[in-house]
Amino acid sequence: MNPDILNERRKTTFDVEKLTNILNGGPEKTNRRREIESMVLNDPDFKNEDPNFLSRSERYDQAVKKSAQMILKLREYGIADPEEIYCYKSSVHPGRPEPFDLHLGMFLPTLLNQATPEQMDRFFMPAWNLEIIGTYAQTEMGHGTHIRGLETTATYDPVTEEFILNSPTVSSIKWWPGGLGKTSNHAIVLAQLYTQGNCHGLHAFIVPIRDMSTHIPLPGVVVGDIGPKFGFTEVDNGFLKLDHVRIPRENMLMKYAKVDPDGTYVKPPSAKLTYGTMVFIRSMIVGESARALAKSSTIAIRYSVVRHQSEIRPGAPEPQILDYQTQQYKLFPVLAMAYAFTFVGQYMNQTYHRITGDINQGDLSELPELHALSAGLKAFTTWAANSAIEVCRMSCGGHGYSCSSAFPDIYVDFTPTCTYEGENTVMMLQTARYLMKSYRQARAGQRLQGIVSYLNEADHPRIQPQLAAARSTGIDMNDMSSLVEVYKLRAATLVELAAESIQKEMQHNKSQEDAWNNSAIDLVRASDAHCHYVVVKLFADKLGEIDDAPIHSVLLTLARLYALYGISNNSGDFLQAGLLNGSQVLQITTHIKELLSELRPNAVALVDAFDIHDKMLNSVLGRYDGNVYEHMFEWARRSPLNSTEVHESYHKYLKPLRSKL
Amino acid sequence: MNPDILNERRKTTFDVEKLTNILNGGPEKTNRRREIESMVLNDPDFKNEDPNFLSRSERYDQAVKKSAQMILKLREYGIADPEEIYCYKSSVHPGRPEPFDLHLGMFLPTLLNQATPEQMDRFFMPAWNLEIIGTYAQTEMGHGTHIRGLETTATYDPVTEEFILNSPTVSSIKWWPGGLGKTSNHAIVLAQLYTQGNCHGLHAFIVPIRDMSTHIPLPGVVVGDIGPKFGFTEVDNGFLKLDHVRIPRENMLMKYAKVDPDGTYVKPPSAKLTYGTMVFIRSMIVGESARALAKSSTIAIRYSVVRHQSEIRPGAPEPQILDYQTQQYKLFPVLAMAYAFTFVGQYMNQTYHRITGDINQGDLSELPELHALSAGLKAFTTWAANSAIEVCRMSCGGHGYSCSSAFPDIYVDFTPTCTYEGENTVMMLQTARYLMKSYRQARAGQRLQGIVSYLNEADHPRIQPQLAAARSTGIDMNDMSSLVEVYKLRAATLVELAAESIQKEMQHNKSQEDAWNNSAIDLVRASDAHCHYVVVKLFADKLGEIDDAPIHSVLLTLARLYALYGISNNSGDFLQAGLLNGSQVLQITTHIKELLSELRPNAVALVDAFDIHDKMLNSVLGRYDGNVYEHMFEWARRSPLNSTEVHESYHKYLKPLRSKL
Repeated sequence: MNPDILNERRKTTFDVEKLTNILNGGPEKTNRRREIESMVLNDPDFKNEDPNFLSRSERYDQAVKKSAQMILKLREYGIADPEEIYCYKSSVHPGRPEPFDLHLGMFLPTLLNQATPEQMDRFFMPAWNLEIIGTYAQTEMGHGTHIRGLETTATYDPVTEEFILNSPTVSSIKWWPGGLGKTSNHAIVLAQLYTQGNCHGLHAFIVPIRDMSTHIPLPGVVVGDIGPKFGFTEVDNGFLKLDHVRIPRENMLMKYAKVDPDGTYVKPPSAKLTYGTMVFIRSMIVGESARALAKSSTIAIRYSVVRHQSEIRPGAPEPQILDYQTQQYKLFPVLAMAYAFTFVGQYMNQTYHRITGDINQGDLSELPELHALSAGLKAFTTWAANSAIEVCRMSCGGHGYSCSSAFPDIYVDFTPTCTYEGENTVMMLQTARYLMKSYRQARAGQRLQGIVSYLNEADHPRIQPQLAAARSTGIDMNDMSSLVEVYKLRAATLVELAAESIQKEMQHNKSQEDAWNNSAIDLVRASDAHCHYVVVKLFADKLGEIDDAPIHSVLLTLARLYALYGISNNSGDFLQAGLLNGSQVLQITTHIKELLSELRPNAVALVDAFDIHDKMLNSVLGRYDGNVYEHMFEWARRSPLNSTEVHESYHKYLKPLRSKL
Repeated sequence: MNPDILNERRKTTFDVEKLTNILNGGPEKTNRRREIESMVLNDPDFKNEDPNFLSRSERYDQAVKKSAQMILKLREYGIADPEEIYCYKSSVHPGRPEPFDLHLGMFLPTLLNQATPEQMDRFFMPAWNLEIIGTYAQTEMGHGTHIRGLETTATYDPVTEEFILNSPTVSSIKWWPGGLGKTSNHAIVLAQLYTQGNCHGLHAFIVPIRDMSTHIPLPGVVVGDIGPKFGFTEVDNGFLKLDHVRIPRENMLMKYAKVDPDGTYVKPPSAKLTYGTMVFIRSMIVGESARALAKSSTIAIRYSVVRHQSEIRPGAPEPQILDYQTQQYKLFPVLAMAYAFTFVGQYMNQTYHRITGDINQGDLSELPELHALSAGLKAFTTWAANSAIEVCRMSCGGHGYSCSSAFPDIYVDFTPTCTYEGENTVMMLQTARYLMKSYRQARAGQRLQGIVSYLNEADHPRIQPQLAAARSTGIDMNDMSSLVEVYKLRAATLVELAAESIQKEMQHNKSQEDAWNNSAIDLVRASDAHCHYVVVKLFADKLGEIDDAPIHSVLLTLARLYALYGISNNSGDFLQAGLLNGSQVLQITTHIKELLSELRPNAVALVDAFDIHDKMLNSVLGRYDGNVYEHMFEWARRSPLNSTEVHESYHKYLKPLRSKL
């Protein structure tokens, strides 16, 4: 153990294991997670080469191998609970997406939700047994977020009782689905359904794409890998071009909508239930934001206590770089954010499960708010985490750029969350739509419930930014509820400003749609402030659940740092709304500096509490034992360029060059 | 030509070619650049495979091949002007660093500056003829920015008249130098010089590391590649461990300092001249920030006019995504920044050359200010560009993640600028040191000259943040000089606040060093505001040089957007300092929206003016003709995973799996 890091752990003021249990949701969960992790990490069948040393094709190959092993082992050990499967999978492919992700996460669940009993017989068991390997093909080369724009057609032919699946244009080629390129032999294809001359919109069809015994693409099917990307190197994201491919009528997923043999279309019963799935996936993404931050802050903080550099006092030994105020100011807010987002993820997950109960009872009342909130929080947390990963990477000097640090992988595999499952700006505008609706309802005298209740007239004074300085409040910067309050008032102000912008546009004879578009900047700001308020509030709420005094104390420090740092970085909003005055903003900087000093002795313990196994972290900079440099040297020597002392290019190009000059 | 992009070009209000000439520094420069580019781009010897489809070793191999060709061709064509060599090199390796970069950019120049005539004879011509290939080995595994901490030793042995070069610890291993791993046979090694029992600090030594005919590492030398990284995939950044390697006394670079045969150390004449080189390199990096922004905004803006998505008005055709206000708000500030940084780069380059003249005349008076400014501007522009590249990438939906977009390469090859040639936070603190010194001088009644003259007492009122609201100025948001003025006052305020923080700390009995560290957050903010002011000022100054009315008009729009966007994003500073009031901040948002609309018709023309050849951009999204989708499909089909219809992993793992389940 590196003496510096040992010394850090001696300074800890709280019980790390207890905090780990809070983060995991209880000691049983911690234990079970560790049990599953050690099953995988000690299993010689999962030994693998560092993917950073492999070519794209080798990485894909290794991932398929491990995933195939994984399926066998899950059966062998009887692991069937979705959360435990997820945990096992995360240990097999630490932090990396893999070629079977869409088979497990989309193909099988879609069958469960949308297949008829007959279809379950034909497709589900073969898919469960990996005879059928499937993916979910929705996005097209030219069409993403706006699903009504999708061009792929499924035209019903009553003569043969078949659907004809077709990609009419280049831009209609299915593009991006994971596992589509090389792995899958079936795809659930989303296509515009045409029957009896009418279009009935998007429906799902099971399309065989590769021969079941040779794996060669079927006639009319052009399928392949879309090429190298930022991240997702193990995954064969694919393209699929269908040239009048015929499938039996029974391959349309018909649990809800139907096409009768004669071509009659039968509408589905109305369904807002897909909201639930979206909420679930987005709450998972919030959890992933937290996870990425936990990893990044673990690496950067541990490295910052073993790394010595420059001097604070002339002649003194080089200090640990975590003693620089600028380093603390980079890393501790990220640490606070990691905790904040963990608790937000927990809240969303619990709320989803609670509401799912209500939904099954037919009570959909809370769903719209949660749906709107989940969109905004997905965007808010992924954007914040995305930048924060890079702050952590760049806080580690040159070594943060080496793949041995794990930062390059963490970033490229995380950043797609900003775009998939709803592009972030679009998500923010979705939340804004709910906020504007709520605002209008409140103005119309309706009494709002839930998180948006702060928009009720009575609860906040009308905002008059012109009078800003006159309104400064008696904010108590040591008190979380006081901080929650100013975030709430800031959100209320920005929601009101966005609403006013729309109004003003409409007074200038703009259509409602143009007024919306011309206010989009304000709308995104309003959503952002709303989400920021929710995060601060949930962090404060979580503190109320913590009994253990030393842990409560350190989490309170983190929560205050999270809140005050956010105010400091958005001080214009608070000043403009008259929620703070200039000298209070100066005080905030002083408070932040104090909080940084308070956190310093517990910094390593706070990342230790994330309890990320060295093999899961896979970072020489973030090693638990702090023995960074010797392992970096060892890692580098395994670089493929070092497999020979003299690279062939020397003989091919450099040596011959001399004679030519 | 895609009709959308054709239509955009028809709307242009200015002469694109004239603007290109302004950006290039005159029509002759534009022409010569194009001439050199076409030499390379039409040369069949430089045809190459897209590096994205190659393994690391293949990429290195291809880069060495091209670099070797390049050296031959430069001789053949007699290209010897450094700027023209740079242009040629940038066309051979568009946007990518390559294995010879340090040979050309550090090894040869260091010989020129620090070698004796005898050393020039022995080393320079062989190096010029690529018999000797060299690199510059300063950074060690455990030591970067703080060069006094470097551990490698060079101990003089008067008996044999040799230096003994040694790496005493793991952390002393030379780490990161480009071309060190596999390419170089010599290295200029920076080491602590010991002679006659005394250490004389860091000196430079020429160390042969590989056999000149076999290229095998010499005895006592352990050298290799440091492994895969974020970016720089073509470059063999290397490690070098020296185990008591002996080199002749004459291999120490002795133009300035010397060691006599008997071991007597002869001091160099004092030299602050290395400042000049640093200024030059940092001004180059500012230019690279501009270049990265030009590329990124070209790709994102062109794609945003051919990409149609969602709907603004229900039922209407999907609009070009550049018609969304949120998209304009993402991209046009980046475009404005690209122009701003281009002009800053031009200014620094010109100033450097002007001052170099003065230096040769013995006048060093302007050097400290330029040195301090170049440190801050390096940090300011690279940080800003780093984030902006990612904003552009994420504005392109999923396709921004594909390597076919070029964004992944642009980002990973640019982001190291935030760390190398001076870590950005350290750079900001260097500028802050100059600002604090200037501030104290001004307080002591000295009259400051140059850019920091705004710190002169008389030129600005004492800042009293408490009275913020009382001080709001009659700012004219249409007038650049008025905007420059508020940026100047903001910088003055933040410099003063940082100075006050240091003072306060010292009043609490902190040492000067601790006071500095405890004020580091404020110091970085002050530097940031100082640099921001300089950028706005230089943009405004540049407008004064533009005669062409339509170009002046569109550049003024960009300059105003740059300035107002910066105020809006840092409104807290301006409010707090009483430079603006709340309603003025609201007006700024309205102004920004107007500027976005004003720029919309010229957006494509403004990126066209960067005149980046399609082959240099290498992005399917950013193609000049806008024909994105067909070329994306064609690119994807060339993905290595598509070289066979069925990947071997199917036969190895997936097919056998069925029988096991």
